[in-house]
Amino acid sequence: MLSLESTEWIIESLLDTDFYKFTMGNLVWKRYPDVPVRYALTLRTKGVNLAAVIDEQELRKELDHVRTLRFNKTELHYLRGTNEYGDRMFGEGYLEFLAALQLPEYFLKRVESGFILEFPGKWSEAIYWETFALSIVNELYYRTFLRKMSKFERQVVAAEGIRRLAEKIRILKEHPEVTFCDFGTRRRFSRACQDYAVGVLAKELSPLQFLGTSNTLLAMNYAITPMGTSAHEMFMAMSGITHGSDEEIRASHNQVLRDWWDEYGQGLSIALTDTYGTDFFFRDMTPEQARDWKGLRQDSGDPIMFGERAIQFYLRCGVDPREKLLVFSDGLDVLQMIKIAGRFMDQIRVTFGWGTNLTNDLGFAALSLVVKLIEANGWGTVKLSDNIAKAVGDPRDVEMFVRIFEYRSTFNVQPHY
Amino acid sequence: MLSLESTEWIIESLLDTDFYKFTMGNLVWKRYPDVPVRYALTLRTKGVNLAAVIDEQELRKELDHVRTLRFNKTELHYLRGTNEYGDRMFGEGYLEFLAALQLPEYFLKRVESGFILEFPGKWSEAIYWETFALSIVNELYYRTFLRKMSKFERQVVAAEGIRRLAEKIRILKEHPEVTFCDFGTRRRFSRACQDYAVGVLAKELSPLQFLGTSNTLLAMNYAITPMGTSAHEMFMAMSGITHGSDEEIRASHNQVLRDWWDEYGQGLSIALTDTYGTDFFFRDMTPEQARDWKGLRQDSGDPIMFGERAIQFYLRCGVDPREKLLVFSDGLDVLQMIKIAGRFMDQIRVTFGWGTNLTNDLGFAALSLVVKLIEANGWGTVKLSDNIAKAVGDPRDVEMFVRIFEYRSTFNVQPHY
Repeated sequence: MLSLESTEWIIESLLDTDFYKFTMGNLVWKRYPDVPVRYALTLRTKGVNLAAVIDEQELRKELDHVRTLRFNKTELHYLRGTNEYGDRMFGEGYLEFLAALQLPEYFLKRVESGFILEFPGKWSEAIYWETFALSIVNELYYRTFLRKMSKFERQVVAAEGIRRLAEKIRILKEHPEVTFCDFGTRRRFSRACQDYAVGVLAKELSPLQFLGTSNTLLAMNYAITPMGTSAHEMFMAMSGITHGSDEEIRASHNQVLRDWWDEYGQGLSIALTDTYGTDFFFRDMTPEQARDWKGLRQDSGDPIMFGERAIQFYLRCGVDPREKLLVFSDGLDVLQMIKIAGRFMDQIRVTFGWGTNLTNDLGFAALSLVVKLIEANGWGTVKLSDNIAKAVGDPRDVEMFVRIFEYRSTFNVQPHY
Repeated sequence: MLSLESTEWIIESLLDTDFYKFTMGNLVWKRYPDVPVRYALTLRTKGVNLAAVIDEQELRKELDHVRTLRFNKTELHYLRGTNEYGDRMFGEGYLEFLAALQLPEYFLKRVESGFILEFPGKWSEAIYWETFALSIVNELYYRTFLRKMSKFERQVVAAEGIRRLAEKIRILKEHPEVTFCDFGTRRRFSRACQDYAVGVLAKELSPLQFLGTSNTLLAMNYAITPMGTSAHEMFMAMSGITHGSDEEIRASHNQVLRDWWDEYGQGLSIALTDTYGTDFFFRDMTPEQARDWKGLRQDSGDPIMFGERAIQFYLRCGVDPREKLLVFSDGLDVLQMIKIAGRFMDQIRVTFGWGTNLTNDLGFAALSLVVKLIEANGWGTVKLSDNIAKAVGDPRDVEMFVRIFEYRSTFNVQPHY
């Protein structure tokens, strides 16, 4: 049963994070372990002051608690035993590194507009903060409202969450063409909510429709597939690592694709397309890469337009789009998934990484909260995305990257979460 | 909290078995997969008729349920990730075999004296029945008594179990020299009882004192070390595989030691000494093996006498006994462990595999129940042990093996469990 009563700690396992933190973490540990980086929490939702809602000491306690956690034997067995994307993808060196890992110190300061929460450190260590910070801030935020309620009122909220989940499942069962996985760790209402949703989906839907979860702990606990490949931070960090001429910055994008392929080959070859805009991506990915890689992930902009462009791109490269996979992961709900899946049926394979609306749909507004890489190797980093409202970076850096990557997109929509 | 209410099924995971079933199972799958074997349930406790206590249909239902179980993704991750005894000890071929495994059919017949319960099949498949059958028969046996009680009376029994466990822990904390692991899967009062005991020990005692559990599922669930190496069945089956002249039968014993070393090297090199009596064992193990192997396991006879002989054996082989480990696993309780550990302190390393008295100590008498290999490759198999009351085999076969292995032991004590 879904309970909204507080647990002792929000994060109780270092596996309670997105699987892509390990796929990226492994590559980073091997190739770029000591690159100095800085991540920062950003709230894109207007009109919310987190510091007015969340108690700083509580936030510190939860973050401090994460720093006391270590991977236990079973968690390391699980990672060592991961072979869904290639035989024994995590080597002993990396697992030993994880076994000894303590998350680096964070920087937290209360300012007028909210909190400054940053994670500086070596890339190979600071990389793990992202999802923990997001899960903690989200859960503390909603707890403030839950605390003002009676126990019964909390049960009513939980019941509303269950009702909505049931409705989603009812519709999805009528649409077996919609296959998806849970991507909701970072925006979940609470750990219990994500746990509940994933447990129910694993039981109620066919494994051919509910394919798995990005949350490694839940994948372990429900014996389903851990899902995920990589994030914008790979491209963003690389721009700092190879920083120099325009050409060197431009070349950093394909360097990431080549590194990734070298490390994982076909298994994890889903490319994220929107770091510097999809226009650039489709100019940068070579026909050979288009042939080799399994597919693409769309994370901003208009999904239908993206799908059409992707099909054209593959045809131009001499590749049959029906052999390729598009993963959509931007602000999805059931109706959108049905629409997208229906639109591309028989033209290109489609699946979904479903986040906020799956794990944070109990009647409260979701926060548009991100932890993004803002600095790598001493340089400010930039994400442009296909929705300039989701851009990340110092304005001068953004301007420079717009120029270098010949960014032209005019899509500008405030993300609703 | 410990509950004695019935669970839906007694066995709910194929990992709910002793780790040595996998270490042996892997070797068997690689080297002797198709050897036809037969295991049989034997009750050594006099005066108990299992068929008068356990309902045949219930027994069939539980055994049938085990045949519906398959290893799930997480269980395979866990096994693939096992590296406590050597890097990635279970290969992909074996894991694929496990992933597809359905336990073979059993043979169950009610006769006047009780049940005939046998597990014929290929060695590589039938090997997994042993602990499941024992766990099921034990738990069904005690359920009969629990059912006659009121709910409160069952709570009183559970409370007695907790009291006894607390007393054990109190004494053990005063004796940090006693290190041990749980070997109680096969004789547990119930799954819940073993789960409770292991969970409590993992929390209450130092991991330097409570070293782990033979139960693979509990090792996974409590993130402790899965413990175990091999059993008598290795030697017993090999006598059938190499069956021929006296010399060939005698040679089968060392063949097992060599196979085991070839497969696992130092990691799992604890030799079980009493299949054909310890006299023979100490004649058969070569000085080189004595040097290489980590140590020995004692499973019958007098533990103090055994320890003294082991020390003498090592000294004769030119090995410093202080570098070697004796694992005692025969009918232990706290006082015996203290006595044995004290007796050999500073002479040879000692640890304990603690079974029945740990997981089945709630005030009910334990059953001396075993599932033993009785036939391999068409030949009757024999275990003599250092306590002729624990011997297994057809009387004529036992006589032959007594002759071949020059068995002289006169130790004859009815096991109390």
